[in-house]
Amino acid sequence: MLDQDLNVTSSEDLAVACGVRATVIRKDLSYFGKFGKRGVGYDLEALVKEIHAILKLNQMTHAALVGVGNIGRAFLAYPGFKAEGIRITAAFDKDVEKIGQKIEGIPIEDVGSMVKRIVEDGIHLAIVAVPPSEAQGTVNRLAKAGIKGIFSFTPCPPKMPTGVKVTCVDLAMEIASLVYYL
Amino acid sequence: MLDQDLNVTSSEDLAVACGVRATVIRKDLSYFGKFGKRGVGYDLEALVKEIHAILKLNQMTHAALVGVGNIGRAFLAYPGFKAEGIRITAAFDKDVEKIGQKIEGIPIEDVGSMVKRIVEDGIHLAIVAVPPSEAQGTVNRLAKAGIKGIFSFTPCPPKMPTGVKVTCVDLAMEIASLVYYL
Repeated sequence: MLDQDLNVTSSEDLAVACGVRATVIRKDLSYFGKFGKRGVGYDLEALVKEIHAILKLNQMTHAALVGVGNIGRAFLAYPGFKAEGIRITAAFDKDVEKIGQKIEGIPIEDVGSMVKRIVEDGIHLAIVAVPPSEAQGTVNRLAKAGIKGIFSFTPCPPKMPTGVKVTCVDLAMEIASLVYYL
Repeated sequence: MLDQDLNVTSSEDLAVACGVRATVIRKDLSYFGKFGKRGVGYDLEALVKEIHAILKLNQMTHAALVGVGNIGRAFLAYPGFKAEGIRITAAFDKDVEKIGQKIEGIPIEDVGSMVKRIVEDGIHLAIVAVPPSEAQGTVNRLAKAGIKGIFSFTPCPPKMPTGVKVTCVDLAMEIASLVYYL
């Protein structure tokens, strides 16, 4: 809406955009304070700011990338993270050809020094793009390093460490599930 | 399990792997025929084959890629599609620098000829990796071209065409939602 140069919105417009009822929008927002003005609506810039604060996206979050293949490189270059306050500040791979290179200004480090580095830097968020055979070991080491949230582009390994929130996107499976609907 | 050189499995083992009860596994499979042998279990190779057939993954499905940026390139090189019978056979971009180039053996074509090409080739599956501002137009044109399933790496546009199954993965949002849990 901001991109469309709008300044004000209503719970009705938000409801349409979100596919829920306007009463749900009003009730949900009311849990966090008073945002809108009756008869005027929500000031968009203020609302976006408030929602960012609620979701803790108003602070910079450092993330580590594990696996700098094609998908990992795409992550390093992904422009969408900045608006959410996410910044990849460390990247790891096991390929000696890649270690020492810089991609998008981030030096690729040896995955062998990953745990030490993540602990030192106090990083709690990791993005994983390793081959499936390395998923379990990677997740285990990240948990050991104190990582609390993992976004994985590798199918989820069988054993998930406790206390770590893991989101896995299995590209091939996502697309295969569409094939069923064709 | 096949990768681990197993030949036979049980509804109990499948239940643990899937996080459901063994009776659910047996009941679900029974809808499609008789797979296992009482006291012996399921022949793994046959079971994988049958499930592929049920999910219609035993045939080659051609897919079109729209947007050959970093993410699109990663898709072209993604090794995981092959096992599911998915093959990207056409790729489109609007960047004149890219049009005519070949990536992973696939020629990049002008997005202006996309609808014609998809109709001619009878492609029904598309992968979208365009900037958010182009998502709506791209989805509309794909629907017009007869595409029935879309996997999008761009946040879903506000208006979805009817009769098309669309899965959208918003990378930044997926990762931002993890930040909330840190």
